[in-house]
Amino acid sequence: MHEVTVSAPVNIACIKYWGKRNTKLILPTNSSLSVTLDQDHLRSTTTSRADQSFEEGDRLWLNGKEETVKEDGRLGVCIKELRNWRKIEEDKDSSLPKLSQWPLRVASYNNFPTAAGLASSASGLAALVASLAKLYSLPQSASQLSLIARQGSGSACRSLFGGFVAWREGSAEDGSDSLAEEVAPQSHWPEMHALICVVSDAKKGTSSTSGMQRTVETSTLLQHRLKIVPGRMDDISKAIQSKDFATFGEITMKDSNSFHSVCLDTSPPIFYLNDVSKSIIAVIEELNRSSGEIVAAYTFDAGPNAVIYALEKNMPKVLGVVNKFFPTSEESRDPFKTEAAELPEGFNVNVVREGGWEKGAVKSLIHTRVGDGPRTLGKEESLLGENGEPKVLA
Amino acid sequence: MHEVTVSAPVNIACIKYWGKRNTKLILPTNSSLSVTLDQDHLRSTTTSRADQSFEEGDRLWLNGKEETVKEDGRLGVCIKELRNWRKIEEDKDSSLPKLSQWPLRVASYNNFPTAAGLASSASGLAALVASLAKLYSLPQSASQLSLIARQGSGSACRSLFGGFVAWREGSAEDGSDSLAEEVAPQSHWPEMHALICVVSDAKKGTSSTSGMQRTVETSTLLQHRLKIVPGRMDDISKAIQSKDFATFGEITMKDSNSFHSVCLDTSPPIFYLNDVSKSIIAVIEELNRSSGEIVAAYTFDAGPNAVIYALEKNMPKVLGVVNKFFPTSEESRDPFKTEAAELPEGFNVNVVREGGWEKGAVKSLIHTRVGDGPRTLGKEESLLGENGEPKVLA
Repeated sequence: MHEVTVSAPVNIACIKYWGKRNTKLILPTNSSLSVTLDQDHLRSTTTSRADQSFEEGDRLWLNGKEETVKEDGRLGVCIKELRNWRKIEEDKDSSLPKLSQWPLRVASYNNFPTAAGLASSASGLAALVASLAKLYSLPQSASQLSLIARQGSGSACRSLFGGFVAWREGSAEDGSDSLAEEVAPQSHWPEMHALICVVSDAKKGTSSTSGMQRTVETSTLLQHRLKIVPGRMDDISKAIQSKDFATFGEITMKDSNSFHSVCLDTSPPIFYLNDVSKSIIAVIEELNRSSGEIVAAYTFDAGPNAVIYALEKNMPKVLGVVNKFFPTSEESRDPFKTEAAELPEGFNVNVVREGGWEKGAVKSLIHTRVGDGPRTLGKEESLLGENGEPKVLA
Repeated sequence: MHEVTVSAPVNIACIKYWGKRNTKLILPTNSSLSVTLDQDHLRSTTTSRADQSFEEGDRLWLNGKEETVKEDGRLGVCIKELRNWRKIEEDKDSSLPKLSQWPLRVASYNNFPTAAGLASSASGLAALVASLAKLYSLPQSASQLSLIARQGSGSACRSLFGGFVAWREGSAEDGSDSLAEEVAPQSHWPEMHALICVVSDAKKGTSSTSGMQRTVETSTLLQHRLKIVPGRMDDISKAIQSKDFATFGEITMKDSNSFHSVCLDTSPPIFYLNDVSKSIIAVIEELNRSSGEIVAAYTFDAGPNAVIYALEKNMPKVLGVVNKFFPTSEESRDPFKTEAAELPEGFNVNVVREGGWEKGAVKSLIHTRVGDGPRTLGKEESLLGENGEPKVLA
């Protein structure tokens, strides 16, 4: 049976991707850089099977719900390109089974709820691309595969690597140099931990796809941001190389704020941070101030959830302030069983409104850390039944 | 008796002042432009008296509470400069009483609560400068007086004029060309109305003085904003000349958003807009979209309160959406007794969270309009008793 099951990680950017210079090929207006999070905690798993006997062409299920694969849609384009690469191998070696001509069955599953506000499209697309590349025994490198994943969902290209990953904007018209590459592996700085704060939001925000396009079209400050990012990419890469958390954290916070600034400078303005998000920022800034050094760094994607990076040794401090001011309403996940520390001496509690936030303003916490790239799993992890349909349907 | 009572207006900027290039002289990093609001509704009143027989030097009361006048403080500098100008006149004409040598008694009163979040320092300083200029019979023009008011509180210089007022950043080292001038008088466009939405805020924000300095020191995007403002100054001035509300409104909203963007790009970031402010923005953007034209323009200073500019004929529409989604908890003021209109057809109510905001998220509304510059009032309006102390103490 020609089947492969792969899992791929979530990544959270420190230098944000916001704006496309080519919406069809998904070529960004600036390079970006992310930390890959541990698949032990957060992952998308995808099983891909090719079988000559399948009828009705390709079929695909996301979290047990069947999705239509449009030929010119993002998923369709990814599958088509990977098939083309398989075809090249088959033409070179006639002994290979003609998998490129066989219909596919693909099932994908995220182990984190959509409500967690994490970009499931990045890990999902990365798992799809990695599973098909494995199924087709493609010789392409992860960077080459990232060219395909990028066209499925921009930031998915970064989930093809573990550790610390750069997506180079590139300059080629056809996007052939707009790819992801490793800045440093997970093993270089395994002490890098992350705390995801899932923030309640009464209103659904602007989608990142339409939001970033509006920013490109209307923000006057974006052009200036684009001039600033290259320097930040260099500086944060060096900080990662030398394990300089203070610089890493400072740039991460600045770039998150810069990204949300250009959102606000968009017409009509886009707001992803809500009052709880802003309060988390104030608490982390005060934690750093009262600690006399940068021990934690917040970053926010296109939504109100915070991701707080900190070294493992400083996570008790982070949990100390987060637990104190943002009591959660739902179960949190901490595989490290970290004990919260007391507030640092001199911490000014007035940075948060009196009494802190009501229970559930932050719904739950997920404590995780830097992780590795896509993993090939055993047959027992397959999401597909014998008949080529998902074992678990929605 | 040598005494004068003057009232001066509040002004609300459409092109925001944010950043000083010289903190001592209060020279701004960019020009700004404001609408002067009607003193019939919002004003600071100041009585200044000079009397040879006063003991203990100068004394000053703000809202009935005595303030210390430090010689090198902002108030002290303003009084000293105006005295110097009086001295020049006395030297030219020996028949003039030597008011420049006599102690002063000054009482100032705002007819709007500090809690309204309006910048009382602008109208207050303007009233002080205008009253002393009148008391001293100074020959200086309002623009020349604005050089003094500017040193008391930057945006105060704009409150020395009615109508539409520009504060030119100037280029001279000594600040001699950083002054206010009229772009158009009140009578040019009296249909310009404003609705102030007083928004509740759980947390006291960053003061504008310290906030703008932090932006100058840490924001990377500010430098780009400074390049954008001159074009906006030209464009909004033309829009005012030609009474083109759509352009006036568009620039006003963009510049407010640009100002709050650079606040967010500051390190640590500064947030003045809260979730209610953002919701007001969403409602006004949707009002404009569903109306098929820009009928209203929001702007926010260093706090969560909105000021919504609209032509008189469109105020019913503005009140319609504001009343619907932001029920107030305290008495509002509408001297025009404007009736709220229905929502425009096609208005998407989903821009606000379901059910709208709880009562009091916007505390109260003040409906006003463009107004004139400082007014000299009659003796019966004096705030000082015979003894040179305020008639009403705090």
